[in-house]
Amino acid sequence: MADLLLALDVKGKTEAVRVANACTGEVDAIKIGYPLVLSTGLGIVKDLTNAEIPIIADFKVADIPNTNTLICEEVFGAGCSGIITHAFCGSDSLAACVDAAHDHGGVCFVVCEMSHPGALDFLSGDNAVRMAEMAKAAGADGIIAPATRPERTAMLRGVIGDAMKIYSPGVGAQGAQPEDVKKYVDGIIVGRAIYEATDPKAAAHEFRVRAR
Amino acid sequence: MADLLLALDVKGKTEAVRVANACTGEVDAIKIGYPLVLSTGLGIVKDLTNAEIPIIADFKVADIPNTNTLICEEVFGAGCSGIITHAFCGSDSLAACVDAAHDHGGVCFVVCEMSHPGALDFLSGDNAVRMAEMAKAAGADGIIAPATRPERTAMLRGVIGDAMKIYSPGVGAQGAQPEDVKKYVDGIIVGRAIYEATDPKAAAHEFRVRAR
Repeated sequence: MADLLLALDVKGKTEAVRVANACTGEVDAIKIGYPLVLSTGLGIVKDLTNAEIPIIADFKVADIPNTNTLICEEVFGAGCSGIITHAFCGSDSLAACVDAAHDHGGVCFVVCEMSHPGALDFLSGDNAVRMAEMAKAAGADGIIAPATRPERTAMLRGVIGDAMKIYSPGVGAQGAQPEDVKKYVDGIIVGRAIYEATDPKAAAHEFRVRAR
Repeated sequence: MADLLLALDVKGKTEAVRVANACTGEVDAIKIGYPLVLSTGLGIVKDLTNAEIPIIADFKVADIPNTNTLICEEVFGAGCSGIITHAFCGSDSLAACVDAAHDHGGVCFVVCEMSHPGALDFLSGDNAVRMAEMAKAAGADGIIAPATRPERTAMLRGVIGDAMKIYSPGVGAQGAQPEDVKKYVDGIIVGRAIYEATDPKAAAHEFRVRAR
């Protein structure tokens, strides 16, 4: 049984708040990214809190340790519950995010593999395994691995063990189905198939049921 | 002869505007990062324009192509002249940033190597060479390579040739001197040694002269 996370990749505060409020009770967390935050400001996190759904900042943090710490302080100070970071800037940069998240009572998830074609250049293969091992060593709460490549996600489950979570994007418009990965992961991430639906609440409810 | 770029890693709008205005005429560009932008909003770019210095968003962009494009549109829409991206997410993600920058009349620089200890995990060695080659193939305007490792920066100059620029951080508080790299690079990036100086304008002037 996997949780359902909504990737709220919409434009503007009004639309973001509308979709979030519609999904109250149907999604376990909302993932927001830089395009929305840069257009609205980080205050969007507070605007979304009426939906009473935890907010995860999918900022794919990728800088030196001190800058990563400062980014996390802004994110958790704004009211987020979690952050998503890259691991390719190294173990010290990764540890800065994990430690900052935990200092604020939040969680940190680590990108190990991505689903777009260019991910095959570096974010795959042995590098993905190394990054999963680094995430485990740093005490991260979980990793991000794609539903579009379930065999890779299953393999990464073997690397990190059962004490860490896996959140998996790619379900819905990108072609993966909840059934493809739900036995390997703790959460499926759905974007367009919910926020572009005529009835986002109904669409979220259907994915929620299927993720169980 | 290298340009002088100010890494404006200060907290808050008031301090950012004070330092930027003090440095008018002494620095060739200002580099801003996410900690400042998340705390002030992207409107900080407009607040800094009185200094009449081009602004480069050091956002180390690292997402899928479409998200990278959306981030760039926010950055250039806000008035920035350039963006710094990672290459680690692959050639398509990198091309999205380069193309978006050029569509807006801006420039795109690509991180090839970083100077913190964790950079040795992935952002170094053969990976750095591959990323420099990818930056060249994508038509990027330049790369980022550290002044703290001048022999690596010199090597990367050989990879990209003379038609692309190199901007080099690590000068000042991190220990490198302008003289270490100015013959290999087109710009040196200085942060604390300018913005923490009692007289930022005088400090910038001194680095400017030494970078020539």
